[in-house]
Amino acid sequence: MIPPALGEFDRITRYFKPLAAGFPGARGLRDDAAVFGVPEGRELVVTADAMVEGVHFFPDDAAGDIAAKLLRTNLSDLAAMGAEPLAYTLTTALPRTVDEAWLAAFTAGLAADQARFGIGLAGGDSVSTRGPITLSVTAFGLVPAGRALPRWGGRVGDRLFVSGTIGDAALGLEIAYGRLPGVHPAARAHLLGRLRRPDPRTTLGHRLIGLASGALDVSDGLVADLGHLCAESGCAARIDAAAVPLSDAARAVIGGDAVRLAQALTGGDDYELVFSAPESATADLMALAAEVGVPITAIGALVDGPPGVVTVRDAQGAPLTLARRGWDHF
Amino acid sequence: MIPPALGEFDRITRYFKPLAAGFPGARGLRDDAAVFGVPEGRELVVTADAMVEGVHFFPDDAAGDIAAKLLRTNLSDLAAMGAEPLAYTLTTALPRTVDEAWLAAFTAGLAADQARFGIGLAGGDSVSTRGPITLSVTAFGLVPAGRALPRWGGRVGDRLFVSGTIGDAALGLEIAYGRLPGVHPAARAHLLGRLRRPDPRTTLGHRLIGLASGALDVSDGLVADLGHLCAESGCAARIDAAAVPLSDAARAVIGGDAVRLAQALTGGDDYELVFSAPESATADLMALAAEVGVPITAIGALVDGPPGVVTVRDAQGAPLTLARRGWDHF
Repeated sequence: MIPPALGEFDRITRYFKPLAAGFPGARGLRDDAAVFGVPEGRELVVTADAMVEGVHFFPDDAAGDIAAKLLRTNLSDLAAMGAEPLAYTLTTALPRTVDEAWLAAFTAGLAADQARFGIGLAGGDSVSTRGPITLSVTAFGLVPAGRALPRWGGRVGDRLFVSGTIGDAALGLEIAYGRLPGVHPAARAHLLGRLRRPDPRTTLGHRLIGLASGALDVSDGLVADLGHLCAESGCAARIDAAAVPLSDAARAVIGGDAVRLAQALTGGDDYELVFSAPESATADLMALAAEVGVPITAIGALVDGPPGVVTVRDAQGAPLTLARRGWDHF
Repeated sequence: MIPPALGEFDRITRYFKPLAAGFPGARGLRDDAAVFGVPEGRELVVTADAMVEGVHFFPDDAAGDIAAKLLRTNLSDLAAMGAEPLAYTLTTALPRTVDEAWLAAFTAGLAADQARFGIGLAGGDSVSTRGPITLSVTAFGLVPAGRALPRWGGRVGDRLFVSGTIGDAALGLEIAYGRLPGVHPAARAHLLGRLRRPDPRTTLGHRLIGLASGALDVSDGLVADLGHLCAESGCAARIDAAAVPLSDAARAVIGGDAVRLAQALTGGDDYELVFSAPESATADLMALAAEVGVPITAIGALVDGPPGVVTVRDAQGAPLTLARRGWDHF
């Protein structure tokens, strides 16, 4: 119902076929579908995430950043399952206002991240829309059969750990909205960078198999996502706010501001891994953190209590009251 | 950036978790991703198709029809590869104007087709949009390892076959646009039904392995899609317009009108299988057609000539001139 600009086939040939060149199962995007096997003793891990202009990214965000975030949010889900990245399908619904320069930058962003994370384009679909840019990825990873890290594997007494730092993206979003003036340029760049280009913990995730009991990635906010792990594991959690790892930039912005701290703990878009593990795994986890170069920090424990309830304690041990637990995408 | 209506988690629990109940790999939609194995000796076939309100369906189309078309277009791609359906992921970008009644009808449509085609929901994502309803499916099927039906397997001298009937959906679209007045109500219902609820040839597709040399499904139009098979196979094709199977409804609407006939041959949305096979396979193909209850009709042959060029001959053997080869989705 919308007349053609650059034809679908030309777009596929010019921009998408090169992205599929490194993944033989894509059949060069020449067939109706991709075909690939799963090695014996392994299972496929499959996740899907969509992003909409004006909801998940700003209309003036760089196309390369949008591409990176799209892939990385999916890669983060794979990492949370203990899977190593394999391939992905991509569907794009693009308005006519999207020009070739945008498409070139977008696919260049995909290409860069494909190389960085060892993933290839398996297939997809390109359609037009009268609405906002709408992007959907289904990502595939591989995990040893029966060993995927579930959300529900936590046990009372397990310690809780988180990778990297928490809250950068939430504070970056405040900056993007213009609600955090006066931030030092270097801190500003760090926080915005973490919002736009999260670091999916793909090198860490699959190494947690055999160490972690339960895991997921922080997308909706540390407290909310930890609540999911607890609810699925049938227990409660206690975390120490002072133990939650913050970047220097986040620490500088938060200062002693309880509202900013709450934003960091509940704001989401962190794409860090939060996981439970028995106390006895601590030394191995710290050695692993050093080996892969991703910090791991103990932030609390799984405790007896109403399933899904997460208590955050301040430095004095008193429970913090949070205005919200996390981000609900609807 | 858009405030919550019915929360994402409530929507997932109420409408999507039941769709995942029959596919154990979905882990009840309780985890970050689905996990499933591929049996030894089999490969996974993966295809993705997206649909946008106002482009691929009308805003007032029934939600159950939209669900059916979304799944069936993907199932048709699996069938064209010779794959048996296994599972799918679904991402939905829905405007706030979509109410629960729509969602209930949409997911009921998915549930009905899941049961009909033996496929389960593996996972997905639900996001909001300020734009039109945008739906994306990635579908998974299984095929014996190394035996997927490629587009490029056709050889000069092979006969060309097509399943079912061609042109119904294209004429149905003319009716939907109000450009085909005076069609008999029964014919009208048939043609609109074929537009809204195509019949993916899942029972036929996987049985073509060992018989067909090359295959694909007709989505962009018989002539255009056959052009793809020829181009990938490095040959040309000749088809006889009079041999192309038409439903009684299509035949009645077309009469002797060359424009209408051209619409049927190039209009797309047929979701029939077109495939090449050696002459010697004809008897087996006819027996298979009878067994699975899907008509198979010989419509022409692969011939020496410029790769991708499809010549359509009329009943007198003269080449037909077509205004367009098919539908380009951009």
